[in-house]
Amino acid sequence: MPFDVVDQIENIFHPRSVAVIGVSDKSHRLGNILLHSIMDMGFKGDLYPVNPREEQVMGLRCYPSLGAIDGPVDSVIISVHPKGVPDLIEDCVAKGVKAAIIFSSGFREKGGEGMRAEAEIVHKARAGGVRIIGPNCMGLYSPSSGLSFFPGMPKEKGTVAFLSQSGSLTNLLGLFAGSRGIRFSKMISVGNAADLDVNDFLEYLGYDSETRLIVLYLEGVEDGRRFISLAKDISLKKPILLWKGGETEGGRKAAGSHTGSLSGSGEIWEAAIRQAGMVKVENLNELIGFITAFQNPYLPMGNRVAIMSGPGGPAVSAADACEKEGLRLARLSEETEKMLAEFVPEFGASISNPVDLSIASSFDQTMYPRATEVCGLDENVDLIVEYISALREGMIEGIIKAQERVRKPIAIVSSMEYATFESPFSQFFGSITREKLVALLMRMYDSGISIHATEQEAARALSSLLKYKKYLVSRHPL
Amino acid sequence: MPFDVVDQIENIFHPRSVAVIGVSDKSHRLGNILLHSIMDMGFKGDLYPVNPREEQVMGLRCYPSLGAIDGPVDSVIISVHPKGVPDLIEDCVAKGVKAAIIFSSGFREKGGEGMRAEAEIVHKARAGGVRIIGPNCMGLYSPSSGLSFFPGMPKEKGTVAFLSQSGSLTNLLGLFAGSRGIRFSKMISVGNAADLDVNDFLEYLGYDSETRLIVLYLEGVEDGRRFISLAKDISLKKPILLWKGGETEGGRKAAGSHTGSLSGSGEIWEAAIRQAGMVKVENLNELIGFITAFQNPYLPMGNRVAIMSGPGGPAVSAADACEKEGLRLARLSEETEKMLAEFVPEFGASISNPVDLSIASSFDQTMYPRATEVCGLDENVDLIVEYISALREGMIEGIIKAQERVRKPIAIVSSMEYATFESPFSQFFGSITREKLVALLMRMYDSGISIHATEQEAARALSSLLKYKKYLVSRHPL
Repeated sequence: MPFDVVDQIENIFHPRSVAVIGVSDKSHRLGNILLHSIMDMGFKGDLYPVNPREEQVMGLRCYPSLGAIDGPVDSVIISVHPKGVPDLIEDCVAKGVKAAIIFSSGFREKGGEGMRAEAEIVHKARAGGVRIIGPNCMGLYSPSSGLSFFPGMPKEKGTVAFLSQSGSLTNLLGLFAGSRGIRFSKMISVGNAADLDVNDFLEYLGYDSETRLIVLYLEGVEDGRRFISLAKDISLKKPILLWKGGETEGGRKAAGSHTGSLSGSGEIWEAAIRQAGMVKVENLNELIGFITAFQNPYLPMGNRVAIMSGPGGPAVSAADACEKEGLRLARLSEETEKMLAEFVPEFGASISNPVDLSIASSFDQTMYPRATEVCGLDENVDLIVEYISALREGMIEGIIKAQERVRKPIAIVSSMEYATFESPFSQFFGSITREKLVALLMRMYDSGISIHATEQEAARALSSLLKYKKYLVSRHPL
Repeated sequence: MPFDVVDQIENIFHPRSVAVIGVSDKSHRLGNILLHSIMDMGFKGDLYPVNPREEQVMGLRCYPSLGAIDGPVDSVIISVHPKGVPDLIEDCVAKGVKAAIIFSSGFREKGGEGMRAEAEIVHKARAGGVRIIGPNCMGLYSPSSGLSFFPGMPKEKGTVAFLSQSGSLTNLLGLFAGSRGIRFSKMISVGNAADLDVNDFLEYLGYDSETRLIVLYLEGVEDGRRFISLAKDISLKKPILLWKGGETEGGRKAAGSHTGSLSGSGEIWEAAIRQAGMVKVENLNELIGFITAFQNPYLPMGNRVAIMSGPGGPAVSAADACEKEGLRLARLSEETEKMLAEFVPEFGASISNPVDLSIASSFDQTMYPRATEVCGLDENVDLIVEYISALREGMIEGIIKAQERVRKPIAIVSSMEYATFESPFSQFFGSITREKLVALLMRMYDSGISIHATEQEAARALSSLLKYKKYLVSRHPL
C-alpha cells in the first residue's frame, strides 16, 4: 500500500529518539561526525550513542547496546564494519526500532558475499518490521526535524529536496548550493536502496508539503515503470530535476561498483525523462544553476529572448547559446529601442537585441536594471538573459525591483567567484561581502531570477523552463 | 610583404613615446583610465597627455596638440568623439606617428556614415604611413613593454597571447584568468580592424618569442583563406585556442552590430578549425580551463583515461563525460589495483577505474597524490581526470610531485570558489588563502596539470589535447 510507505517515511523523518552505533570518544569515526551533525542541527528528541567500550561520547551518556537503552528508539544509525550489521539488525528488531539507517558499505556494490549479506539484512529487517535506508548511504538531512549527516549543513530549511544515489553528493550540494543561498527541505542518500528505494522516497517527496522542487541524482532504478509513472504525476505538481549518472558504458560500469545499480541504456532514460516532464542536468555546476531557475519560476509564454550584456563578445556568444537551445532573439519594439537609447551610450553599444550596454554598465549600476525593465515589459519578449561581469549590490537590488513589474524568467550569467573577489579591479567593478551576496541571491531566487556560470547553462535552463511549461500544458489541455 | 607587418607590429609593441588624446584632469574619461593603466604598468618611455583645455593631467604636463610635443611620438591613443578622429589622423601623419590606437566607437559597426568615416581615416592613415589599431577597440596590453588598457592587469608577463574582436573580453580575461594564476605575453583588442587586422596580428604572434599559446576570440575575418593558411602553420609551433562568436543567425546579427564583422557560416568555420588544427572553446569559463590545459601540456599517447574521485557520483559522471568525448576508461593493471588497495579503504570505495577514493580522501591529503602516481605510471593509462571537492595545499603539492614521475596530462575538476571559501566545512576540508592558491595553480600549470569547472570541460580539454596531438602527427608524419 503506497500510502503506508509515505506515512512510514514521514515518521522516519520525525523520530522521537535516535541511537548512533559506531561512535567513539577517542577517534574520528564516521559515527562521531554523524552524531555531531545531529547535535549541531539541534535535534529535539533523545540521542543515544552506543558503544560497549565507552561510558560517554561527546558529552552524552553512551550505552553498551541498543537493548540497554531504557526508552523506545525510533531510528538507529549504523556505521560499523559490514560484518557487524546483520546482528545489529536483529537488535533493532528486538528493540522495536522503526528504521535502520545503514552507512556501512561492503554490500551489494561489492558483489558476491556482500550481495548475500545485503539480502540477509533486508530479510531480517522486513520480517521484524524495521525499514532500512541504505546500506552504503549517508542517510537523511532535514533541518525542520533536526536531522543531518555532516556538520555545517545549513540550519535553515528551504523548499528543495535532494534524493541521491551518491552520498557524497549530498554533502557537496549542501555546501556548494548552501553557500549560494539555496536551502533544502530534505536530503536523502539512499545508497544501495536495499529496502526503501528511490521510488518510495520519490513518492514521499511528491506528497511532502515542505518540498516544492525535487532534485534527483540517479544511477539506476529497480522498477522503471513505477518510477516513470510517479515522476509523470509528481511533475505536474513540482518540477523534477534529474542528474543521471551511468549514461555510457564506462559510466554504467562505474555505477555498478558505486551503488550496484542496473542503469538501463541512455536512450531508455532519455525517453523516460521526456515522457515524465523531468528536466535533465549533467553536472553539479549546472544543477546548482538549474535549481535557482526552477525554485520559484515564472513559466515563459514563448521562446523569444532578450539578451543584455556589458561585454560585447559574450553578448554575441549568449545569442549563439540561446539559438542553439531553440530560443529566438526577440525583435524589440521601436518604443523599447527608443527607451533604451535614453541611457545606452551612442557609441560602443547597441540598443537592438542583444542589447550591448557597453563598459559603461560596469560603472553605472542603474543600466542593467533599466534595461531589464524596458526589455522585460516589451510584449515581444518572453525570457531574459543578462551577462554581468561582476554583480554589485545596487545593480542586483535594481534588477529585483524591475522584476516586480516584469515577471518573466530572468537568467543571469555571472561568476560568483568575482562578485566577492577583492582585486585592483574592485575600485571600478566594486565587490560584495559573501554574507551580503547570499542574502541578495536568496531574494533573487524568490523573485524568479536565476544565476548561471555560463551562457550555455543559462540558455539550457531557460529552454528547460519552456519545455517544462509545455509539458504542463500538454497534461492540462485547455 | 608579410615580414614588414610583423616588424611594424613588433615596433608598435615597443613604442619609445606614447601620446594619449581624450584625457581630462577633471572627469573620469576613458582616456584617463588608459593613461593611468600605462603609468601603472611602469611604461619606461615618454608619455604625453593631449588636451588643449588642460595644463596638467595626472601629474604629467599636458600638451594642447600632437604638434606641440617637442620630441617624436611613436604611438597615439585616441579616445574622443568619432567626429574628431579624422582630423587627429591628419595630425598623426603630420607628426610622423607610427601607430594610432583608436578606442573611439561609432564607425563601421554603426553602418552608413560610420562606414564612410572609417574608410576615410584608413585612407588618410595609409597615405601618411600611420598604422591603425581599431577603431572601436581596447588596444594593446604587453607587460614586458609596459603597455596596458585597464588598471589592475597583471604586471608579470606570461606566455599566453590573447587576440580578440571583443575589447571588454580582454579586460575580463585579464582579471578572471589573472586571478587564477594565468599570465599573458600580449593582449590585442583589434575592434573593427580597419587597418591592421586579425591576420596581421596572428602572423605576428606566430613569430613572437614571448608567446607559446595563442587564444583568439573572433566573430569573423576578412580574408578567410589567409587566416586558415596562417593558422595551419602556426598551429605546428604553438596551439591556437579559438572562441568563435556568431555561429548562429542570431549570433551573427549580434556580431554585425558589435564589430561589423562578416562571420561566415558555422560549417565553414568548423571545417577551418579542423583543417588548421585549432582548438574550439565556447565560453569564458571553458576558455580559462583550456588555457591551463594547453599552456604547458604533455601531449597524450592515446585515449585511455584513469579517473579518480572522492565523491562517487561525480566519478560516474566523469566516466560518462570522458566516453562522450571519445576517451576510453583505462583498464588498470592488476599491479596498479593491488597498489591502490594498500591505501584505498576496503568499503565505500573502488580500486578499479574510475577509482573511488571515498570521503576518506577529504581527510587524508596523501590519497590523491598516491593514486595519481600509481595510476599515472600504469602503462595502460594515457590521461588522468581527478574530481576533487576542495583543493588543499598538501594535496596539490603531492600531485605536483607525483606528476614529476607521471608526465601525462592531468585534468583536475574542482571549484576554485570553494578552495578558498571559509565555511563550517573548512574544519574538515580545509581552505587555502587566495594568494597561496594562485602560487600553487601556477606551479600546476607549469607541470602540465590543468583545472576545470566541470567534468565535461575536463573531458573536452583532454580530448582536444589528443586531437591537437593527432594534428601535429598528421602534419609531421614519421
